[in-house]
Amino acid sequence: MARTRFPLAARSTDLVGSVIDSSTSLLAKQQHDIVRFAMGSPAPEAVPSEVLGELARAELSRPDAYDYAASEGDPRLREALLADLDGTTDHTTPERLLITAGGMQGLDLAFKLFVDPGDLVVVESPTYTNGSATAMSYQAQLLEVPVDDEGMQVDRLEEMVEQAGRAPKAIYAIPTFQNPSGASMSIERRHRLIELTRRWGSLLIDDDPYGRLRFAGDDVPSLHELADGDPLVLSVRTFSKIIGPGLRVGWVEADPALQQLLINAKQAMDTCTNLPLQRLIAAFLEGGHLGEHLATQRVAYRERKTAMQEALVEHFGDEIRCTDPEGGFFLWVTFGEEVDTEALFERALADGVAFIPGNAFSPSKFFPNAVRLCFASSQPDRIREGVARLRTAVDHVKQGA
Amino acid sequence: MARTRFPLAARSTDLVGSVIDSSTSLLAKQQHDIVRFAMGSPAPEAVPSEVLGELARAELSRPDAYDYAASEGDPRLREALLADLDGTTDHTTPERLLITAGGMQGLDLAFKLFVDPGDLVVVESPTYTNGSATAMSYQAQLLEVPVDDEGMQVDRLEEMVEQAGRAPKAIYAIPTFQNPSGASMSIERRHRLIELTRRWGSLLIDDDPYGRLRFAGDDVPSLHELADGDPLVLSVRTFSKIIGPGLRVGWVEADPALQQLLINAKQAMDTCTNLPLQRLIAAFLEGGHLGEHLATQRVAYRERKTAMQEALVEHFGDEIRCTDPEGGFFLWVTFGEEVDTEALFERALADGVAFIPGNAFSPSKFFPNAVRLCFASSQPDRIREGVARLRTAVDHVKQGA
Repeated sequence: MARTRFPLAARSTDLVGSVIDSSTSLLAKQQHDIVRFAMGSPAPEAVPSEVLGELARAELSRPDAYDYAASEGDPRLREALLADLDGTTDHTTPERLLITAGGMQGLDLAFKLFVDPGDLVVVESPTYTNGSATAMSYQAQLLEVPVDDEGMQVDRLEEMVEQAGRAPKAIYAIPTFQNPSGASMSIERRHRLIELTRRWGSLLIDDDPYGRLRFAGDDVPSLHELADGDPLVLSVRTFSKIIGPGLRVGWVEADPALQQLLINAKQAMDTCTNLPLQRLIAAFLEGGHLGEHLATQRVAYRERKTAMQEALVEHFGDEIRCTDPEGGFFLWVTFGEEVDTEALFERALADGVAFIPGNAFSPSKFFPNAVRLCFASSQPDRIREGVARLRTAVDHVKQGA
Repeated sequence: MARTRFPLAARSTDLVGSVIDSSTSLLAKQQHDIVRFAMGSPAPEAVPSEVLGELARAELSRPDAYDYAASEGDPRLREALLADLDGTTDHTTPERLLITAGGMQGLDLAFKLFVDPGDLVVVESPTYTNGSATAMSYQAQLLEVPVDDEGMQVDRLEEMVEQAGRAPKAIYAIPTFQNPSGASMSIERRHRLIELTRRWGSLLIDDDPYGRLRFAGDDVPSLHELADGDPLVLSVRTFSKIIGPGLRVGWVEADPALQQLLINAKQAMDTCTNLPLQRLIAAFLEGGHLGEHLATQRVAYRERKTAMQEALVEHFGDEIRCTDPEGGFFLWVTFGEEVDTEALFERALADGVAFIPGNAFSPSKFFPNAVRLCFASSQPDRIREGVARLRTAVDHVKQGA
């Protein structure tokens, strides 16, 4: 990046600049056949685009669909969403609901409202790149708490905060089918995390984009539900993973006392969330399409996860460790220490497979030999092909090719 | 706002909380017949919704329309937009272009990248509420420079910066058919503003949402064009006023050295701009619909402006002063000093007309007896009715009703 000639200094924080960015751009520019394990997108055939296109024809012909939306969200979408959430672990009420430009804007709102420069913010390690990036963009000091098969290690959290000698201003957690690890936080840890949040008076950011994509195991209550209206818990949700990420529509669930602050902050970000796609989603929910769509998706994602795990065993055997998620989009694969996955990335692209290197998910770059693989975007045959190519790429790198 | 019970302190800056917010919410909740001079929206019949609905049926049936977009914008929209801008005063090149979630996100990006707490930021007085709000959300110290019939008073700018004793980090200007005054900056002042920007090494934010809606007078080159690629000029544009604000699609035009920084910052705000509506706008541009649409709009807006001015003269005569814009959406009306337009606001809603009080456009609240009236949203008959209602509301307030 040729920044040296630019005459003004940007803010001290560098606002990300991670591997994921260049990988996205690279992918957009690639001409040849690539198996895409990189982005966390539903597969094209998993998007209900026929139904959406038919609904769009009616909804997007209405002139009032192109006006500003109410900042808290279109009344029709709000109503349809509240009805959809009724009876789920994410049930809520109108005065706690704000429609956002995807889950990402929910994170931006939370950090912008509460994080001052130098504040301590807890993130999981590994964690969602753009989530930690947003905290850093407000000049937070991050504390990376390790994740294991039961999610964030809450005991370690307590120790690390004690060592830091001050309470975190915010704790950023992805409790269910975590991005990137796929791990889910046990119910005991969820309770414990809420307890610690209360003890420290921190804001608990409960980011749960994948919760409705469980394909194995038993449901676990969301942090939102367990916290039972605690004002310190702010929940971030999105339609990205359950309908399509390109929509950029999500929501925040928070204490009613925060509603006006959230509205004001959102107006200074993007005025309102796009209205035509709010209407489109409302029509999709009103038509009862989501339930059926999710049921189909869960079956497909289970099949894809299994295909990927089996191919990994076939091609890598004991050379790797791999998580075993019960839902969501991702496997987290750890290679031997000799494998540098950032170096592997370019080689793998050349060999026809894309992933995200582990260090993109850790501001301190704690995962040089791990990768995140998205099994959701490709059909089983393509997944097997992609894993075979990954094997080739690893061999190429080991041979110094 | 019941913030007192909330256990955490939000950041020191209050992130707006202006009259415009409550007015938006109030309007959304109003049940009875209101003439809407408040929001800066095109009229419903001015939105090409039939064409858009037809295009949506095809574009939004394609599964790839629901994936993440490239952060710099969908290649198809970028290409169509570059072709559309070719030969206009906003012509540009791919490496200077970034698609954003409306013009508002362009402002958020500029201030987020360059404004540190305490930095001096120049805004026009009056200015666009959410623009100054965004600067304040990064804890800028604002310098409000008065606007007259030729736009920002650049002589006063120089004096005021001298008095402040330090250079502004950024200068936020809406040079053409300014929001809220309707004034346009003369070409001499545009040159002068660019000169001062260079002398001070400031970032000049050139926000020009209305430039293509000229219905009288001669074209004036944009600040972008006059600056001829100066890296200190960052231009913010949007489809909000020329197609529809609900789309939330706009763009930033900036030095190529900023492209990666803008992409990184945008990823930490909302990942990317919604893709289905980028595709919809691309199809609209590719089909050659924009030129015809703008030609129709200009005729309609000229007629509406004239209707509003005539009605104001009829009902208020010498009691008010009113600007005379050559394009855009707004008249700025100043009443006698005895009229408090914030008090008038509630009364006017009850009497069936909505506007935005002048103080919403000035962080220091310099305009207690002014209002912004949007003539673009209503047909001439409704405009006449609305101005008559405004007269009634003023009389009610004067009578202490």
